[in-house]
Amino acid sequence: MNIEQKIRSVKDYPKEGIDFKDITTLLKDKDAFKYSIDEIAKYLKDKNVDLVVGPEARGFIMGTPVAYAINAGFVPVRKPGKLPADVESFEYDLEYGTDTLEIHKDAILEGQRVAIVDDLLATGGTTRATAKLIEKLGGKVVAMAFLIELEFLNGRDKVSEYDIKSLVKY
Amino acid sequence: MNIEQKIRSVKDYPKEGIDFKDITTLLKDKDAFKYSIDEIAKYLKDKNVDLVVGPEARGFIMGTPVAYAINAGFVPVRKPGKLPADVESFEYDLEYGTDTLEIHKDAILEGQRVAIVDDLLATGGTTRATAKLIEKLGGKVVAMAFLIELEFLNGRDKVSEYDIKSLVKY
Repeated sequence: MNIEQKIRSVKDYPKEGIDFKDITTLLKDKDAFKYSIDEIAKYLKDKNVDLVVGPEARGFIMGTPVAYAINAGFVPVRKPGKLPADVESFEYDLEYGTDTLEIHKDAILEGQRVAIVDDLLATGGTTRATAKLIEKLGGKVVAMAFLIELEFLNGRDKVSEYDIKSLVKY
Repeated sequence: MNIEQKIRSVKDYPKEGIDFKDITTLLKDKDAFKYSIDEIAKYLKDKNVDLVVGPEARGFIMGTPVAYAINAGFVPVRKPGKLPADVESFEYDLEYGTDTLEIHKDAILEGQRVAIVDDLLATGGTTRATAKLIEKLGGKVVAMAFLIELEFLNGRDKVSEYDIKSLVKY
């Protein structure tokens, strides 16, 4: 199935010069949505994944159906202040300034096998921070899967030590 | 399966006197997570649902796996400024002040059958706003399903014209 044609390009969003890849047109198409989740599930099948981790908020959209499809648990990674219990934090650099992501300290047990699933691999900053949070808790990042990869941003270079799959490349 | 025991209570979060129901402890348990999604899918089975709508952000966590399980599309409802294309907005009252939710104008076709899925039915404000957005676009809200219902907040009264299911009641 050609899922690329289901992704909408929105010019100059969120700011001028950016050609935003809008996945909502794919998500509302039940066949394209199911196909995308199934393709990621297929990639993860032999990796004995205990937990899928998805970063807020579009990582929830791709991560939870993948977790369901491969019969794994799901763990959210969130912006500061959104998780109610004790958290581990990771601060990382943006183009201008820094950002922080959090995970519950008891979300992952030592040695659990974890896949990161998100809609987008762009600069790799969020993905790398998510991997570091998982490893701080003793989890093993066995795979990373994305609906879209923006290859011209070279995000793979930031997470080159991991096993990565993306369904649509720009 | 007793999924209630998988939900963690966090005292005084986000503020004093509130006993927050934390679903992350359920989500990370693959069997409790799968059971919860399957129970909602079972409830929706005979309702011929075209689309599942989930409000940001925990509605994404419950809504997308349910959409996948029943082979429907998924439509996100988001906070203002998060959706890249043309949106329909709905403003609603909170205890103090107002809040606004948005949906893409082209997200739902006239006559499509829609289920709202979220983690929590509390006061019913978010749920009612979500239903109104769906109806503005011409969709028909055929069901609402929640992991948790806080019965003492009487949220059902705000959406009493709809068919509602919740898995755990407090």
